[in-house]
Amino acid sequence: MFDITVSQFDLVYNAFSFTIAVMGAATLFFILSRSQVAPAYRTALAVTALVTGIALYHYVRIFASWEGAYAVTNGTITATGAKFNDAYRYVDWLLTVPLLLVELILVMRLSPTESSRKAVKLGVLAAVMVGLGYPGEIATDSSTRWLWWSMSMIPFLIIVYDLAVGLKASIASQPESARGLIRSARTLTIASWCFYPLVFVLPMLGVTGGNATVAVQVGYTIADIVSKAGFGVLIYLIAARKSDLEKYVPA
Amino acid sequence: MFDITVSQFDLVYNAFSFTIAVMGAATLFFILSRSQVAPAYRTALAVTALVTGIALYHYVRIFASWEGAYAVTNGTITATGAKFNDAYRYVDWLLTVPLLLVELILVMRLSPTESSRKAVKLGVLAAVMVGLGYPGEIATDSSTRWLWWSMSMIPFLIIVYDLAVGLKASIASQPESARGLIRSARTLTIASWCFYPLVFVLPMLGVTGGNATVAVQVGYTIADIVSKAGFGVLIYLIAARKSDLEKYVPA
Repeated sequence: MFDITVSQFDLVYNAFSFTIAVMGAATLFFILSRSQVAPAYRTALAVTALVTGIALYHYVRIFASWEGAYAVTNGTITATGAKFNDAYRYVDWLLTVPLLLVELILVMRLSPTESSRKAVKLGVLAAVMVGLGYPGEIATDSSTRWLWWSMSMIPFLIIVYDLAVGLKASIASQPESARGLIRSARTLTIASWCFYPLVFVLPMLGVTGGNATVAVQVGYTIADIVSKAGFGVLIYLIAARKSDLEKYVPA
Repeated sequence: MFDITVSQFDLVYNAFSFTIAVMGAATLFFILSRSQVAPAYRTALAVTALVTGIALYHYVRIFASWEGAYAVTNGTITATGAKFNDAYRYVDWLLTVPLLLVELILVMRLSPTESSRKAVKLGVLAAVMVGLGYPGEIATDSSTRWLWWSMSMIPFLIIVYDLAVGLKASIASQPESARGLIRSARTLTIASWCFYPLVFVLPMLGVTGGNATVAVQVGYTIADIVSKAGFGVLIYLIAARKSDLEKYVPA
């Protein structure tokens, strides 16, 4: 592991712990809120709870891995020799990124054919995108990182294009007062997703050693909070607004 | 870590354990009570459960951190060299303080526009307040502590003013028999919140070393119990009273 200072260790440590609290609270909220929305939107909220629940599990593991990689005694930090396992993030994304796209499709309540067509297409692309990023993440030389990054950007750009343009017609078919929220969800997806490839390239842009480790860990953590818990709250608001428009009254 | 006696260690240790029990029980109660109130108030109770649930998580961590910082053997206490992580409190407040304000706003059931306007305003102010307090909390010299304390008091006073004065009109619009309870919730918020800046200044008022550590930890713990679990019970009572007035009959 790279040398880091005690305050860098603490920053990552507290960021991971914060995320455990956020993901746990978000999961509980989405589970409890299912009964507040019309039955048609409950699967969307269930999937939202799965995403933050899976992230909760992985952040508990990442936190423990980080804690095990360093020892802080009397204000001095030493690397223990245990490896900090970055693979947890990719395993997490392999599951959660396709599910995030499914959330968005489900809450739009398109026709069953269109929903499953879009879910399969975007889900497969998302899995390919994450799979292509991993060999780059564990590489230490910049040229290998750039190679896999570029390959991973191909499915990434197809997804972003599909969200930006392909969903336009579907958004126009949504009830007017829900359109703004759905547009926000789409924009939040695109914006928070762009954060990941940017964090990925930090070590290739001269941020090195301990600084790179800290920047990448905190960067991915912020992106995860926005794109999973923040996005989930938007999905809930869309589901609640549409339930309301459909005159749904919770029992 | 400062030198403390075995009984000071035990006092903090038992206070943390007590709080774990309180927050766990409170979370379970708020989840179970959701079905007892009208659907309009269930989100307020869900948020109340999130607050105590998040606090439960953080007290489990704080407890473990305290246990790791000292070793008590044969009645003798020694510092282990592991750091007691005070950041958990601030990470907790960053999440729970905005949510506490959201609880109060949700249970009042104002118009959607007024609710989201107030929630965003008070939520952002609360996060700024907590963020400004942290650099002071980890500072060891009094002048730095006073500086951040003063800065943090600005958003604090704006929130308290808004609760005390700004909610007056909204309270007048509540059903008469619920007004007293809502006024109590508001008073409890203001009173329990004032406790935090007071605890913060103890080390600057001559309480030093181990005594300061113990006073601050026990003080914040009492404030957390009152402002999270105690306040939550009031929110539940308000929701139950209003459900009753609206002739809601639990199924």
